[in-house]
Amino acid sequence: MKIAIITLDAFNELDSFIASAILNRVNLPDWEVQICCPTDQVTSMNGVRIEAQQPIEYANTADIVLFGSGMKTLEYANDASFLKRLSLDPTKQLIGSQCSGALFLQRLGLLENTISTDTLTAPKLLEVGMEVADQPLYAEGNIASTGGCLSSYYLAAWMITKATNWQTAADIIHYVAPVGQKEMYVEMTKGALADYL
Amino acid sequence: MKIAIITLDAFNELDSFIASAILNRVNLPDWEVQICCPTDQVTSMNGVRIEAQQPIEYANTADIVLFGSGMKTLEYANDASFLKRLSLDPTKQLIGSQCSGALFLQRLGLLENTISTDTLTAPKLLEVGMEVADQPLYAEGNIASTGGCLSSYYLAAWMITKATNWQTAADIIHYVAPVGQKEMYVEMTKGALADYL
Repeated sequence: MKIAIITLDAFNELDSFIASAILNRVNLPDWEVQICCPTDQVTSMNGVRIEAQQPIEYANTADIVLFGSGMKTLEYANDASFLKRLSLDPTKQLIGSQCSGALFLQRLGLLENTISTDTLTAPKLLEVGMEVADQPLYAEGNIASTGGCLSSYYLAAWMITKATNWQTAADIIHYVAPVGQKEMYVEMTKGALADYL
Repeated sequence: MKIAIITLDAFNELDSFIASAILNRVNLPDWEVQICCPTDQVTSMNGVRIEAQQPIEYANTADIVLFGSGMKTLEYANDASFLKRLSLDPTKQLIGSQCSGALFLQRLGLLENTISTDTLTAPKLLEVGMEVADQPLYAEGNIASTGGCLSSYYLAAWMITKATNWQTAADIIHYVAPVGQKEMYVEMTKGALADYL
């Protein structure tokens, strides 16, 4: 299983790293999570420079693709030369978006009617005719969208559930959840995924 | 306000970046959050290489210091030459730890009796006579400890509340919380901080 975390310039750390760190906790042979960037290095919206683990094209052969969010997502989503680097297949890949990453799901025609996103991105999706769901995670088949940075762990749990099973996701959420609240976080995650389990 | 996020080699992305990204949302002049590392670059426990924004010594003149967590925290906490680079003042600084970062609070004598940490670090603190709290956040005065990666946002909210006020923290948690669950996350945060507000 190859997992691509698409991380662009001016990225939001929450939206790439919560999901990637949780996905990295799946303990299966050949399970590989990689931060994929359009250039060798990218700098976060808060000035943290990171090195790409893979180029964007890694997503094209990945089993799971996650579009992170950031301050320049709209710019990338409107850039035909950038979109041309992506060739995804929703019949074979699990594809998800966090916050403004939803713009890619719309541009690539992966979710055509309803989507979950953050409050700043919502108007940009409403104006192109999408309906914005008032829930942390909205999915159809192999495609999921989440809104609000902290819903990243729901998205990771959805991906782990689809790729393996709910119990694997539940065990990982239990591990990363706050001390004294572990059952509660597993229940919250189950709630967010309820329609899709 | 200078905020130092101590991020060591083999760091856990959740434990440095959830808090740093949330702390970065405080919109005050001179509010500066910096990732501080022992070397110019460090690599996360999942192989992501980042560049330091500041050296470790930045923490010594910071107003807020947060010890992140990772696979080598124990090694650093037992390294006298590393500890010598730190000269913190708990009467003037707010100091917090995430998961295994708690080892630094113990080694530096900042929390001497009770501490919150993750389940893997707990035995290492029990064996040196600490009591481990079964709650996501435990604080005394200017010092706070949190356990379980996702409690990072409680730690950030505690720091913002102490440095500014609860409403500023609540507004930021509301912003980053999952869509459709924003009030719930503010209430959960308030609950975790209840004894310290």
